[in-house]
Amino acid sequence: MTSFEPSGPMNVLWIMADQLRWDYLSCYGHPHLNTPHIDSLAARGVRFDNAYVQSPICGPSRMSSYTGRYCHSHGSTWNGFPLRVGEPTLGDHLRKQGVRPVLVGKTHMTVDAEGMEWLGINQTTEIGVRISECGFEPFERDDGLHPPEYDPHPPYNDYLRSKGIAGEHPWHDRANAGIDEAGERKSGWYLKYSNLPADIPEELSETPYMTTRAIEFMENAGDEPWLCHLSFIKPHWPYIVPAPYHDMYGPEQILPPVRDDRELETDHPVFKAFLESRICRTFARDEVRERVIPAYMGLIKQIDDQMGRLFSFMEERNLFDNTMIVFTSDHGDYLGDHWMGEKDLFHDQSVKVPLIIYDPRSQANATRGTSCDLLVESIDLAPTFQSFFGGPPLPHILEGRDLTPILIGEADANTWRTFLFSEYDYAVKEARARIGNAQEDARLVMIRDARYKYIHAEGFRPMLFDLQEDPDELMDLCGMMDDPALETIKLRFSDALSHWARRHHNRITMPPEAIEARTGHEPPGILIGVWDETDRRS
Amino acid sequence: MTSFEPSGPMNVLWIMADQLRWDYLSCYGHPHLNTPHIDSLAARGVRFDNAYVQSPICGPSRMSSYTGRYCHSHGSTWNGFPLRVGEPTLGDHLRKQGVRPVLVGKTHMTVDAEGMEWLGINQTTEIGVRISECGFEPFERDDGLHPPEYDPHPPYNDYLRSKGIAGEHPWHDRANAGIDEAGERKSGWYLKYSNLPADIPEELSETPYMTTRAIEFMENAGDEPWLCHLSFIKPHWPYIVPAPYHDMYGPEQILPPVRDDRELETDHPVFKAFLESRICRTFARDEVRERVIPAYMGLIKQIDDQMGRLFSFMEERNLFDNTMIVFTSDHGDYLGDHWMGEKDLFHDQSVKVPLIIYDPRSQANATRGTSCDLLVESIDLAPTFQSFFGGPPLPHILEGRDLTPILIGEADANTWRTFLFSEYDYAVKEARARIGNAQEDARLVMIRDARYKYIHAEGFRPMLFDLQEDPDELMDLCGMMDDPALETIKLRFSDALSHWARRHHNRITMPPEAIEARTGHEPPGILIGVWDETDRRS
Repeated sequence: MTSFEPSGPMNVLWIMADQLRWDYLSCYGHPHLNTPHIDSLAARGVRFDNAYVQSPICGPSRMSSYTGRYCHSHGSTWNGFPLRVGEPTLGDHLRKQGVRPVLVGKTHMTVDAEGMEWLGINQTTEIGVRISECGFEPFERDDGLHPPEYDPHPPYNDYLRSKGIAGEHPWHDRANAGIDEAGERKSGWYLKYSNLPADIPEELSETPYMTTRAIEFMENAGDEPWLCHLSFIKPHWPYIVPAPYHDMYGPEQILPPVRDDRELETDHPVFKAFLESRICRTFARDEVRERVIPAYMGLIKQIDDQMGRLFSFMEERNLFDNTMIVFTSDHGDYLGDHWMGEKDLFHDQSVKVPLIIYDPRSQANATRGTSCDLLVESIDLAPTFQSFFGGPPLPHILEGRDLTPILIGEADANTWRTFLFSEYDYAVKEARARIGNAQEDARLVMIRDARYKYIHAEGFRPMLFDLQEDPDELMDLCGMMDDPALETIKLRFSDALSHWARRHHNRITMPPEAIEARTGHEPPGILIGVWDETDRRS
Repeated sequence: MTSFEPSGPMNVLWIMADQLRWDYLSCYGHPHLNTPHIDSLAARGVRFDNAYVQSPICGPSRMSSYTGRYCHSHGSTWNGFPLRVGEPTLGDHLRKQGVRPVLVGKTHMTVDAEGMEWLGINQTTEIGVRISECGFEPFERDDGLHPPEYDPHPPYNDYLRSKGIAGEHPWHDRANAGIDEAGERKSGWYLKYSNLPADIPEELSETPYMTTRAIEFMENAGDEPWLCHLSFIKPHWPYIVPAPYHDMYGPEQILPPVRDDRELETDHPVFKAFLESRICRTFARDEVRERVIPAYMGLIKQIDDQMGRLFSFMEERNLFDNTMIVFTSDHGDYLGDHWMGEKDLFHDQSVKVPLIIYDPRSQANATRGTSCDLLVESIDLAPTFQSFFGGPPLPHILEGRDLTPILIGEADANTWRTFLFSEYDYAVKEARARIGNAQEDARLVMIRDARYKYIHAEGFRPMLFDLQEDPDELMDLCGMMDDPALETIKLRFSDALSHWARRHHNRITMPPEAIEARTGHEPPGILIGVWDETDRRS
């Protein structure tokens, strides 16, 4: 593999949308949603067509992205489950390389307050802030969900007020609410009002605001190398968008749902319990899809327009010369496909994400505008960034794979990973209570290879989809007639799962070179199994 | 299950020998090694006949004991692999319960200096010391191995000098060396000289010294509840003991080696590579066993005599009224059995340990002097201590099982664990290099059930012993003729391994009650999948 010497300061701009499906961009084939700016990035970089997140839900997916480690390893398996103190983050690795890891937007990080207390770390010190922010320096931290009930004073409210947007809680009452025809204020929390324009000037809404903040950071970043994580809350719910985006898309632009009546007859207890949940019953209704999807598309279109603004700024500053730009998402959104809403399970609508990487280095010229169908995990980004900045590999600790070989056209499909993994802990979901499963056993693991998707459900039979014969994932082969040919396939996947689970996931304090150096050697002065002075053979 | 209210201050004295085989005590059936004081503890408590350590090597075994967690979880899989900062320890749990966790002796803890630096924790602060000492307050820390090459000034040297023992390095030159018939000083590092008496008055040698330190701690402990971990280095090598213990045992007290010529013909690459190591070739020689075993027995006899002294002191102070006393070891010693020396692999000589628990509470009266053959892991001690002090259960975080039901005679064999696990990471062993295995794959996992012992060797075939038909573990069933009946047994164990590996091992920041409380609930103000104001069903 080629190695690089960075010439001059190098930067990474890592853009993440929230709940953006892989297929709602024109460069990924959406027929009605035109996203020219994001497409232009794909034209200058590599578009990954099989990129998956480590969990189809914000918190754990992000904790994996920010640590480069599986959920099984970092343990923050659901939203609000604190990331344990001492879990090494991408920020920790980059800082060691002299890079400033900066956050603009959302992380979904929850502080391990008890762990910090045990270790005597004050959350307000420089290091305390860093730990609390999952390794980042928070230029702007905004997780984008601020119900007045538990977040009465988000900083974004102050911004809105400074721009003349009045009200007790403008995030809630203006940016995420609309005025209906009768002049009544309607909350964007209710799906029925997703067709209303948010009651806020478009340029003050969350996506432009966060874009502005990223530009402000870049304007003042100086010559120190940086990684800026620009992390939007949108198109995540509340599904409401300001004019003109609220009515750009109509019924004729809504794709028909990907679903089959036979899915409703599944005998799989976990899939069945999810189908019975409120969110899924809601999104199975056409009126819900008809209200929500145009707003969802508008939110994406707004992001694309902001990408245009951002990229223009970067062009003016020549930042394309030395900045790796990544565009991705933390998971998708069912939007009624498979009779489901939200995310949670492992259909591609939920767990597959868009991933575009623009690499400024000339070594990457050969791959510009190409796509890649190798199996990629979101934990691959951390080692890719680390490698971009010239850092040494950190296997064991970073569990992802450096994508540089793909970016420079030197990846070998024969030695690339054969399986990828994604996990879901449904311990806190109502579905678990309905099934009567134990907390400990509320675990799903998805394993994908080039052709199949296998879903291990602890305590229940697996699910299996043949993505070649059934790309829409409508037929769970394990739920159909017994077929002896399936046994071989299932065994291959359960072996892969067991192999993956057995691996070291926590041997994080000894790098491979230190292990290699110690192999076959005892510490000085330690003699084991030596008979006498003449017997000091090694 | 009965619950207890502690009346008055309760304490735990947790005594650990190092490298003491389970079967070298008279209460465990050794025919020639009489250990009346340890036996007296068994007569007042419960003797566990199937107690296993989580790894047959000091560091990882101890890190599991001190955290109550598997090696797979804490990641400190070999001696000197630092225990990651933030790994919760027994000491952390006990301190929360108002108990003082005190160390007298060895832990084999290695500091995660890089992790501490990242978190800005100074090793010399109170919390820094605690983290560096694996959760303990070090009344006396002494890991017992002080080669001048890397530990020129152990505190024990100062003690010896204060008692008039001269020399540049009295630990090395006096306590662990002897004078031969020609008047020459011979190092105890050489097995040939194990028959010499150590050149030190017996009462100043390491085992009495550490016992004295524990007594000094108890004399001044006051009324605050404490756990004192009295942790001897012996009978660990260097195998040399002062008079009169050096010649208490002769050839007639050496048990014949447990081994079979067929073991030497094993086709198992890992077992074979270990058999070929220097330590094993050495201990396969009769002259080595003849020199080492009497010294080993003398070291144990000395420990037993010190137990007599310690227990007398405790009787005088009425400490038996309110102190749980545990006697155990961190792993065993092959001593030439199976043609092996040291520990490393999973025969009972290596991985099974003595475990005796005396529980002062009247509820435990019914089990005094009994034995228990349920499968017990060393990680069970941490939750047992936590429970003894009246703490709430901490499953997920503590992976062991509270032994209290056994101590009070209420354990149900039908609901007790079916499998126990022990792990070995041979990445740094010469055997790994000889096999040419990858660091990542240098993993062994032993699984025991009531009858069989199964050893998973990553990348190789498993090993299997039928402890009922072959209690000496001389016949590896997987290495013999193919027997279809074996397939069912092997499958049962590989399933158990996979199940265990798949479990949550790192979801340590969310206790079960917090997960239960959240189940089916969203945070206040968050509405997901709600159509309108009338649709607020849960």
